[in-house]
Amino acid sequence: MKTKMGEIIKGKPVADAITESIINDVEEIKSKGINPKLTIVRVGADPSDLAYERGALKRMEKCGIEKEVVELPVDISQEDFIRELKKVNEDENTHGILVFRPMPKHLDEDVIKYIISPEKDVDCFSPVNVAKVTEGDETGFPPATPTAVMEILKHYDVDLKGKHAVVIGRSLVVGKPVSMLLLKENATVTICHSRTQDLPGVCRAADVLVAAVGRARMVDDTYVKDGAVVVDVGINMDEDNNLCGDVDFDKCVGKSSMITPVPAGVGSVTTSVLAKHVVKACRILNNI
Amino acid sequence: MKTKMGEIIKGKPVADAITESIINDVEEIKSKGINPKLTIVRVGADPSDLAYERGALKRMEKCGIEKEVVELPVDISQEDFIRELKKVNEDENTHGILVFRPMPKHLDEDVIKYIISPEKDVDCFSPVNVAKVTEGDETGFPPATPTAVMEILKHYDVDLKGKHAVVIGRSLVVGKPVSMLLLKENATVTICHSRTQDLPGVCRAADVLVAAVGRARMVDDTYVKDGAVVVDVGINMDEDNNLCGDVDFDKCVGKSSMITPVPAGVGSVTTSVLAKHVVKACRILNNI
Repeated sequence: MKTKMGEIIKGKPVADAITESIINDVEEIKSKGINPKLTIVRVGADPSDLAYERGALKRMEKCGIEKEVVELPVDISQEDFIRELKKVNEDENTHGILVFRPMPKHLDEDVIKYIISPEKDVDCFSPVNVAKVTEGDETGFPPATPTAVMEILKHYDVDLKGKHAVVIGRSLVVGKPVSMLLLKENATVTICHSRTQDLPGVCRAADVLVAAVGRARMVDDTYVKDGAVVVDVGINMDEDNNLCGDVDFDKCVGKSSMITPVPAGVGSVTTSVLAKHVVKACRILNNI
Repeated sequence: MKTKMGEIIKGKPVADAITESIINDVEEIKSKGINPKLTIVRVGADPSDLAYERGALKRMEKCGIEKEVVELPVDISQEDFIRELKKVNEDENTHGILVFRPMPKHLDEDVIKYIISPEKDVDCFSPVNVAKVTEGDETGFPPATPTAVMEILKHYDVDLKGKHAVVIGRSLVVGKPVSMLLLKENATVTICHSRTQDLPGVCRAADVLVAAVGRARMVDDTYVKDGAVVVDVGINMDEDNNLCGDVDFDKCVGKSSMITPVPAGVGSVTTSVLAKHVVKACRILNNI
């Protein structure tokens, strides 16, 4: 008997395709004398922030996008932080702003999130962009990770219209926005979470299953309908300190029709989304 | 054979209970020298706006809440409308503002929605409140109708935790916000719409079915699992000009454990929600 095997849908080809199109776009914008620029605002030096920052800077360079990092001390006061953020926000040469979150606890994100201009808010910090994602308003900026999920599904021609998408996780950075984006593509969307009864049963209804729950290899083959598309948003460390997703890849690959790996899946696409958003912000801000 | 019969859960007892508690609340606030007040901003004289306005004014009176209607001509310019809305917004005696929507097409809601202060925005016009509903932030004001749905479910002790709620409809005034509110109560939530494949089958998974689709009696017994709770948000006219919901009540009542009627269901609770929101806004604005 031949084992059926899911197609492994990697992030790199998606990221490459996006980058390719951005390079052309940036050249065209530069020919008008405008240089698209991302400014990253980082408080402290969290290792995972630094890792993402390196990837983001590399991607911007590849795309021809200017970049700057504003590094602030981990004990910066709220007042000082706000002053710094306002400075970045008012800088005419900055088109996109990425603020690393979560921020240190003494900084009140619920105040800070109102300061960043929605037009420069390329990773959905501002409530205006949260609202736009909910409204399905395409002038907004959804967070990078759920957008990366959608880019992957689009790149690999996954049909969403009328299909049943099940999202495990209801966070504001992944679960909820990816649900809204799937809904916009006319999928029927189910949002599950830790309190869901019979989670595997609910997930087995999915034509497209998006796991964004943050628990190493929690999603096994009992969650997957034969032929489902499985997208793994998780980035976890297992007991042996191996990087792994929320999906038990080995158990699920044979049941799915397509499956994203971890690493080399969704995570590989986020910085390209960020670059795309910077270009979009630059066009909006300059009316071009 | 005895016909099994669903409990008909009416809106009036819910509205009465909310009103009762508001009356006490308003008395307490008035004893501090503050008079909670709703200002309604209406453009033109659409009959359904007028009907709702009458109900809202009556409810405010019952609750001891001050009220005012700013009636504006249907051909008011965007500039003039914005000036009037700003005046209401700045009026210190107004705590809650209701703007009837949809507005005439020459008025740009996407501009106007940013003018109303989130703290006075008792029916979720402002993007800040759209974001707060998505975030599950209870300082915000969800729209009246989805809140009325939640009040009914709470009043009749419907257990939501871990249960499967299916919402038919993905509008910004009902489908999406009610999905977020159900999610906050730890229900598993499925959002369906016109493109959903096998809609009756998806709905039959529901422990709680919320119909907000706007088609007379579309939801029949093939949509309802035995013992499900059915909430009908629809207000439609059938061919014979009878008021009816999205649910075929006669066909579904025997299959459901509880079902809201139309009229006398969800629609009876919305003005009480509005009154509750005015009181909440008044407390927030006065820090009491």
